[in-house]
Amino acid sequence: MNGNFTYCNPTKLYFGVDALENLCLELPKYGKNVMLSYGGGSVKRNGIYEKVVALLKANGKNIIEDGGVMPNPTIERVMEGVGRARMGKADLILAVGGGSVCDYAKAVSVSVNCEEDIWEKYFIRFEDVDCAIVPVGCVLTMVGTGSEMNGGSVITNHREKLKIGHVFGENVFPKFAVLNPEFTFTLPRYQMIAGIYDIMSHILEQYFSGTDDNTSDYIAEGLLRSLIHSADIAAEDPLDYEARSNLMWTATWALNTLIAKGKTTDWMVHMLGQAVGAFTDATHGMTLSAVTMPYYRYILPYGTKKFARYAVNVWGVNEAGKSETAVAYEGLERMEAWMKKLGLVMDLTSLGATKDMLDGMVKSTLIMDGGYKVMNEKDIRAVLSASF
Amino acid sequence: MNGNFTYCNPTKLYFGVDALENLCLELPKYGKNVMLSYGGGSVKRNGIYEKVVALLKANGKNIIEDGGVMPNPTIERVMEGVGRARMGKADLILAVGGGSVCDYAKAVSVSVNCEEDIWEKYFIRFEDVDCAIVPVGCVLTMVGTGSEMNGGSVITNHREKLKIGHVFGENVFPKFAVLNPEFTFTLPRYQMIAGIYDIMSHILEQYFSGTDDNTSDYIAEGLLRSLIHSADIAAEDPLDYEARSNLMWTATWALNTLIAKGKTTDWMVHMLGQAVGAFTDATHGMTLSAVTMPYYRYILPYGTKKFARYAVNVWGVNEAGKSETAVAYEGLERMEAWMKKLGLVMDLTSLGATKDMLDGMVKSTLIMDGGYKVMNEKDIRAVLSASF
Repeated sequence: MNGNFTYCNPTKLYFGVDALENLCLELPKYGKNVMLSYGGGSVKRNGIYEKVVALLKANGKNIIEDGGVMPNPTIERVMEGVGRARMGKADLILAVGGGSVCDYAKAVSVSVNCEEDIWEKYFIRFEDVDCAIVPVGCVLTMVGTGSEMNGGSVITNHREKLKIGHVFGENVFPKFAVLNPEFTFTLPRYQMIAGIYDIMSHILEQYFSGTDDNTSDYIAEGLLRSLIHSADIAAEDPLDYEARSNLMWTATWALNTLIAKGKTTDWMVHMLGQAVGAFTDATHGMTLSAVTMPYYRYILPYGTKKFARYAVNVWGVNEAGKSETAVAYEGLERMEAWMKKLGLVMDLTSLGATKDMLDGMVKSTLIMDGGYKVMNEKDIRAVLSASF
Repeated sequence: MNGNFTYCNPTKLYFGVDALENLCLELPKYGKNVMLSYGGGSVKRNGIYEKVVALLKANGKNIIEDGGVMPNPTIERVMEGVGRARMGKADLILAVGGGSVCDYAKAVSVSVNCEEDIWEKYFIRFEDVDCAIVPVGCVLTMVGTGSEMNGGSVITNHREKLKIGHVFGENVFPKFAVLNPEFTFTLPRYQMIAGIYDIMSHILEQYFSGTDDNTSDYIAEGLLRSLIHSADIAAEDPLDYEARSNLMWTATWALNTLIAKGKTTDWMVHMLGQAVGAFTDATHGMTLSAVTMPYYRYILPYGTKKFARYAVNVWGVNEAGKSETAVAYEGLERMEAWMKKLGLVMDLTSLGATKDMLDGMVKSTLIMDGGYKVMNEKDIRAVLSASF
C-alpha cells in the first residue's frame, strides 16, 4: 500500500428489498424542507416516486419539487436547482434516480450557500468547498456511477463543450443511500448494460496503475470477477435478483475510494469518454466502452505485466508457454469478445460522433498522469481516431 | 446479496509512515483529558509511546496513564480502566497497541457511564449500549483483529472460564485509527504469524457460509490471495514494508463488516478458539490455527461446493478430472501445508492444553448457527479432540 493516505467514508447504505422503509430513520434527522430531485419521469411510471412522496409526507416534510434532471446534467440545470433550493430553504436534497441525479444533487449541495461562479470555482479551478453544504440523500434506481457513496459530481457545460467531474470531500458524500435492487428492474436493457460497463471501467481505471503489489488490486480483481459473472446472468434475465443485487453492490464498492487506496489511478478512459459525451450527449457508459479497447491496446506496452496479470486473474487466460505480452493481449481479446456479446457500443460512430468532432474532442480531453503512460495530444488523437 | 442489511463504517483511517502526525487533526476534536491505554511496555521500548505522549502534550492534553493492559484483557482489568477513566474524567481513550488494547478500550468506553454489571449486561445478555460512550481512538502496533475499524470487543472472565466477544454498534467503533505499518516491525515473529492467521480466519469465517453467489465472497477471495502472498514475503523478511502494509490493510478490511454483508457467517473457529483461550490464555491467532483443520475437515461434507470453490479460486487447485469432493479436500491440504510452513500452531497440546480441559472447553464453546453445520456438543467434542 503505497504512500500516506486517509480513508473515511461515512455514507450509510440501506440495502435490500425493504431498504426504502429506512427513510423513516433518516428523515427525522433533517429539517422540514426536502428538495425532491429526480429525472425524466420513469420514477413516476414505476411507482418509486409515489412511494418516496408518501414517506416524505408521513414524516411531515414539505416537498420542493425538482423533477426533470437530465442525464449528463448541465451547469444551467444545477443553477436552476440552486435557485429552487434557496427559495424553498431546503434542509435536505433527496436524489431519486441514477448517477446523474446524484451528481447533480451534490453540485447543488455545495452551491446553495456559495456566492462565487460555481462552474469556475468547482469545475475549472477545482477548489474546495468553503461554505455550508445542504445534505444529500439518495434513492438509487440505476447503478453504475457509484455516486451514492462518493464525492464525485460530473457536470456538463454545453457552451464550453466540457464535461468535467469534481471529486468533493467526505462532507459532501451522500449522508445515506437507499439501495433496493428491485428499483433497477425496470431500467431499459441499454441503460443496464451501459451501467455495467461504467462499473467495470471504474474498477479498471484504478487497477491499471502502479507496479507494486497492492491489496487494492486483489480486491479489484474480486470485484471484476463478481461483476462479469453477474453481468452475464443479468443480461440473460434482468429480473434475476441475485445478479442485480450483486451488480448494485459492486457498483458502490467500485468507486467509493476503497480500491484507489495506495494507488495513483489512471482515469484516461473517463477523460476520453467525457470528451465524447460533451460532443454527443451519449450515454456515459457507452462512451467509455467505445474508447476502451483502442486506449488499452495503446497503453498495453507501457504496463504489460499488469495487463498479463489481468488476463490471468480476471479472464482465466492460461499463461503456459506464452510470452507475457501474448498473455496480456489475449486478456484484452477475451474482454473485447465479452463486451461485444454483452451488447456494448464499441465505436464512436454508433454514438453519433463524426470525424469533424475529432479536433474538439482531443482539445477537451483532460490529461491525467496516474496511468502507465501520460498521454499527449498526439496519443489522444490516435486513440480517438482508432475508436471510429 | 441476500436479505436486507445496513452498512455504515464511520471510522477514519490514517495510513502510512507519517500517519501518526494526524493525531494533530484528531485530538483538537476532544476535551482535555485523554486516557492513554497500552499493553506491557513494548510501546515504550520501541519509542511509539514517547511519540504519542509528545503529540498529546503538544496538543495540550492531560494524560491519564493506563498501561499494562494484558493480551486477552480481563473483565477485572476493564473495571480498573473504568475507574481510572471516571476518576480522570476521560474525554477520549487513546488505545496504543494491538487488538487486545483496542478491544479493552471499547469495553471501557461503553462502561464508564453504565451503572449495571458490565459483564452481565454486555457479555452474557448481549444488550445494546444505552449510556453515553467515551470516544476511542487507536494507534495500531500489531495487526490481526481488525478491532481498529469495528465494534468488536472480546473480554475474558477467568472466574467463569469464559472469553466472550460483544459486537457493539457503529457509535462504539473507534473514531479514528492510525495505521503505520512500520509500527508493526518490532513485533516478535510468533505474534506476527498469529496475527496473520487471525486475519485469515476472520475472512474464512465469513466466506464459509451461504450457497448463493455473493459479491462479498469475491472480495473475500481477493483479500485471501493478497494475504497469502504478503504473508509469504513477510515471513521471509518481516521488514518488507510493502508486505507488512498489505497485511495491515487486509486485516482492517477482513473484519470491518464489509465482507459479511449479505451473508450469514460462521464464526465457530473463533468460538472454539475462544474456549481454548479461556483455559490456556494462549495467543488468540494460535488458538484459531490449532482448531481450524479439524473443524473444516469436519464440516466440509456440509459445504463441499464452497470448499471446492475455495480450493480453486484461492489455492489454485486444478480441478480437471477430479470430483468436487476431491478438489475441496485438496484445497484444505494446500492450506494445511501453507500453515505449517508459516509456523502456525496446529494442535492444542502445543498451546499447553491438556485433555482434562476438554469437558470444560466443550461447555464454554458458544454455538453459532450461520455456518454449513450447526454444531452440537458431540460435534464440538469431536473437533476439539481431533485438535490434540
